[in-house]
Amino acid sequence: MKIGCVGLGQMGRAIAGNLVRAGHEVRVWNRTAPRAEPLGAAGATVVASPSEAADADVVLTMLADDAAVEGVVFGERGILGCRAMHVSMSTIGIAFADRLDAAHAERGQAFLSAPVFGRPAAAEAAQLFVLCAGAEEARRRAGPLFTAISQRVFELGEKPSAANLVKLCGNFMIMAATEAMAEAMTLAEKGGIARAALLEVLTGTLFGAPLYKTYGQLLVDDRFRPAGFAAPLGLKDMKLAAAAADAARVPMPLLSLVRDRLVSAIATEGEEIDWAGIALPVRRAAGL
Amino acid sequence: MKIGCVGLGQMGRAIAGNLVRAGHEVRVWNRTAPRAEPLGAAGATVVASPSEAADADVVLTMLADDAAVEGVVFGERGILGCRAMHVSMSTIGIAFADRLDAAHAERGQAFLSAPVFGRPAAAEAAQLFVLCAGAEEARRRAGPLFTAISQRVFELGEKPSAANLVKLCGNFMIMAATEAMAEAMTLAEKGGIARAALLEVLTGTLFGAPLYKTYGQLLVDDRFRPAGFAAPLGLKDMKLAAAAADAARVPMPLLSLVRDRLVSAIATEGEEIDWAGIALPVRRAAGL
Amino acid sequence: MKIGCVGLGQMGRAIAGNLVRAGHEVRVWNRTAPRAEPLGAAGATVVASPSEAADADVVLTMLADDAAVEGVVFGERGILGCRAMHVSMSTIGIAFADRLDAAHAERGQAFLSAPVFGRPAAAEAAQLFVLCAGAEEARRRAGPLFTAISQRVFELGEKPSAANLVKLCGNFMIMAATEAMAEAMTLAEKGGIARAALLEVLTGTLFGAPLYKTYGQLLVDDRFRPAGFAAPLGLKDMKLAAAAADAARVPMPLLSLVRDRLVSAIATEGEEIDWAGIALPVRRAAGL
Amino acid sequence: MKIGCVGLGQMGRAIAGNLVRAGHEVRVWNRTAPRAEPLGAAGATVVASPSEAADADVVLTMLADDAAVEGVVFGERGILGCRAMHVSMSTIGIAFADRLDAAHAERGQAFLSAPVFGRPAAAEAAQLFVLCAGAEEARRRAGPLFTAISQRVFELGEKPSAANLVKLCGNFMIMAATEAMAEAMTLAEKGGIARAALLEVLTGTLFGAPLYKTYGQLLVDDRFRPAGFAAPLGLKDMKLAAAAADAARVPMPLLSLVRDRLVSAIATEGEEIDWAGIALPVRRAAGL
Repeated sequence: MKIGCVGLGQMGRAIAGNLVRAGHEVRVWNRTAPRAEPLGAAGATVVASPSEAADADVVLTMLADDAAVEGVVFGERGILGCRAMHVSMSTIGIAFADRLDAAHAERGQAFLSAPVFGRPAAAEAAQLFVLCAGAEEARRRAGPLFTAISQRVFELGEKPSAANLVKLCGNFMIMAATEAMAEAMTLAEKGGIARAALLEVLTGTLFGAPLYKTYGQLLVDDRFRPAGFAAPLGLKDMKLAAAAADAARVPMPLLSLVRDRLVSAIATEGEEIDWAGIALPVRRAAGL
Repeated sequence: MKIGCVGLGQMGRAIAGNLVRAGHEVRVWNRTAPRAEPLGAAGATVVASPSEAADADVVLTMLADDAAVEGVVFGERGILGCRAMHVSMSTIGIAFADRLDAAHAERGQAFLSAPVFGRPAAAEAAQLFVLCAGAEEARRRAGPLFTAISQRVFELGEKPSAANLVKLCGNFMIMAATEAMAEAMTLAEKGGIARAALLEVLTGTLFGAPLYKTYGQLLVDDRFRPAGFAAPLGLKDMKLAAAAADAARVPMPLLSLVRDRLVSAIATEGEEIDWAGIALPVRRAAGL
Repeated sequence: MKIGCVGLGQMGRAIAGNLVRAGHEVRVWNRTAPRAEPLGAAGATVVASPSEAADADVVLTMLADDAAVEGVVFGERGILGCRAMHVSMSTIGIAFADRLDAAHAERGQAFLSAPVFGRPAAAEAAQLFVLCAGAEEARRRAGPLFTAISQRVFELGEKPSAANLVKLCGNFMIMAATEAMAEAMTLAEKGGIARAALLEVLTGTLFGAPLYKTYGQLLVDDRFRPAGFAAPLGLKDMKLAAAAADAARVPMPLLSLVRDRLVSAIATEGEEIDWAGIALPVRRAAGL
Repeated sequence: MKIGCVGLGQMGRAIAGNLVRAGHEVRVWNRTAPRAEPLGAAGATVVASPSEAADADVVLTMLADDAAVEGVVFGERGILGCRAMHVSMSTIGIAFADRLDAAHAERGQAFLSAPVFGRPAAAEAAQLFVLCAGAEEARRRAGPLFTAISQRVFELGEKPSAANLVKLCGNFMIMAATEAMAEAMTLAEKGGIARAALLEVLTGTLFGAPLYKTYGQLLVDDRFRPAGFAAPLGLKDMKLAAAAADAARVPMPLLSLVRDRLVSAIATEGEEIDWAGIALPVRRAAGL
């Protein structure tokens, strides 16, 4: 398949690399051009604009936030109106996803939301999880692409923004579990029990999931720098979730709690802290 | 081994039955005597007081709360001062566990805290998880007993109440995960996504742990009656955790949140609701 | 003075009327024109655009939200670049106030933020409180205008958005006090004490402030319809406060709490409920 | 009247002094005897036990907590069963107040709950507020006593513990208002507005109550040592309120929030901090 890749951060680069390796004909574009070079060396075609990348069967976008996606879609020489089906993989807001959907529909351009779960290492290993929503025919067509980059695809119906909502729910769940572990570990520690001992019990009994093992270990080791996923990005996602909750009239006090914690982590630890670093204000509030 | 079993509720009965089946010589006592009869028929000796049950190598107690344990230990014809090592398996408070430890030490009687994770079905199947703390020699001696009833034992050091603290942390984590799922499912549902679809994504990606599968399914099905573990018992445990947190000077806002939710679930749904029923006030606050 | 008034809702109308009565030469404009007629009959000049209203010494804007202000300032035939000093009295966000300030400065047009405290009845009675910030000379010039509509002016320095921030803080404080009263009254009521009896103690001892008397009585009487200030407007203000808090990196869990309550009040009671109606979900969560 | 005074801390001493000055025949007792001496010098009779103090028309108790009251009532040479009507002025729990009521009723001894609002300075100046509940005849009899020590008495019906519940509600309201001010001041300060400027606006508009003036000034000045009312005592009261709320099945998330804040203030600032010192963890969580 002929695939354009727009956005070559840690995630986008890894995805594009796997598409090249899978034998697809890949066109890459990044706002800061040098990032595209290694992919060019690996066999991709480096192009000069999002619209050139979208001169393809499918164009993927994987960018930091709504504003960045807005730029490459609606901006000059943008994706909108090009012949490629647009597969949006960024973590964006619900209202913006709905706007993208409507704008593409108006132009007769196919559009899918396909955000992913997985850290950069999982992207490298083609082991992402894809959450996919949009017209069935479009999902079918995007199948080979997802096969090349992921371990599993979850189909979430016809409405693209549904996939974005599930993604935001997932990120909220990660923060909620982290807050829970941070509070429990702080209580345990002040009660004379090592954090690692508590974590061993949790993951050895009811909480034997990847999330608890990975994030729990970060908390045991106080390992929050360099950030795998920086707190301000986590805060952005919690705000997107809160905007969705406000719009749907759903009070979510636990979401509010983790959002306030992220604000506190950034205020006290700086913008470079990992989002799991919400454990630090938890500990500090207890005098540790 | 000669083992006394005090407290024959759903959990205590299942444990005693497994000890009989494992070939131990079991003496059983329950406040309401008829509950002991089936075990008598199965080969246990029904006795007339906790102290008679404690005329053994080990005496287990598995009761509803601090007050019940206080009665069988410090009350007339109680366990205190008997020859058996006392293994306390109930979910009790930290201060009370420390008091039990001191009282036994004063009498030269061995004492272990060994609360468990597992619903009654796991107890029947001898698949409990045991959290064990106390003197090493005592833990060693209790080994065969735990082998007969559990799939795994976690050793948590010399101080008995440490095991109780870990147990309370675990129950808090369960409520925290339930609140998180309830909020996320409510948001998803109002956004047009089936609860089951969200749960499938969560358990298929980062949250593939028994807790999310079991409790998540309860939430998907709105199945909160009859209670597997009633909300007032859950509230009791959250209060014990809060008392421990207050004493250790650890602010735990997520604990406070789930505690308030349990109060609300009981206020609006009645005392018979399962503790996972905290999902109902979450949904109701969103107008569902 | 020659004064333009843009926005003739309940508040704007009352303010314009007082300016006419005080002998000023008043030009009025409203998006839906008929609202301007009674003021025309009372001696004001009805004009056809914001820019005509701003052909004056001062132009006041009193509108519902950021978007409405954006329209009359930056839109076609807008206020920006006119000769009048612009006095912005709406409750708007901090970032938007800063943007207004910069845009006016660029055009060499004087600009003040002057949001107010007071319900429509206070506006009619020329008993508003004005929070005023901006260049000192501009504040001095606006003095006679404020004299005609308010009981007191608070000067808050040179930076216009400071007045907006104080206004948002005040609205947050109102919601916080309302939540506190709602929780306390619910506890009292379930404990057999009439809400009115509790309120009498509070206002007769430490809480003898207008806020507690007025809002407390609303809660005693369950009088939330018709809305004096509708919950969705209150929610809008809490979101503006939260945006300011996020930007300044200030975690505000009590703000989060009242925000979630407003969402719940709207979800369960409808969009028409008064913002003091947050008392209803408080009561309902307790089973009342 | 012949009046016994049991408990001569800051509050009890001031009350007893005013009773002496008002011409009553006063008998005083304190656990640590030397505290009684100045009152002896002023005309009171120093006695050797609570029961001797209760050889009077009325006996007042003003002590730190439930346990202290339990000691002087139910302990050896205690008040229970003496001829004096017992007027309990301490801030105690609802369940314990009910137990006191029942125990006195059983002995045919009159009993009133009469907790007060007011700092020690107000007690010295005979300017307390009294919350009084119990049998009407008993309240009538205690009238002259209250006249000598207070500026106003609130009658709260026949059930003594109602007065205690209102007192706990009041202390909760104080903490809620303090948290609200602390959050708003932190936001204002990070936004460039002096705390004093914000307080001036609040108390000059809707929040012109003694509570906001007094506590607001403490927050403006960061004046939390020495404590007027120490945080651990405030935490005790919030726990009593939470116990009442749990028993009445009332979720109170704002109560939970201030309770967690008090825990944090004690954990980070030490046991000697004033309860208004909850402002410190608020500021610290924002990186100030």
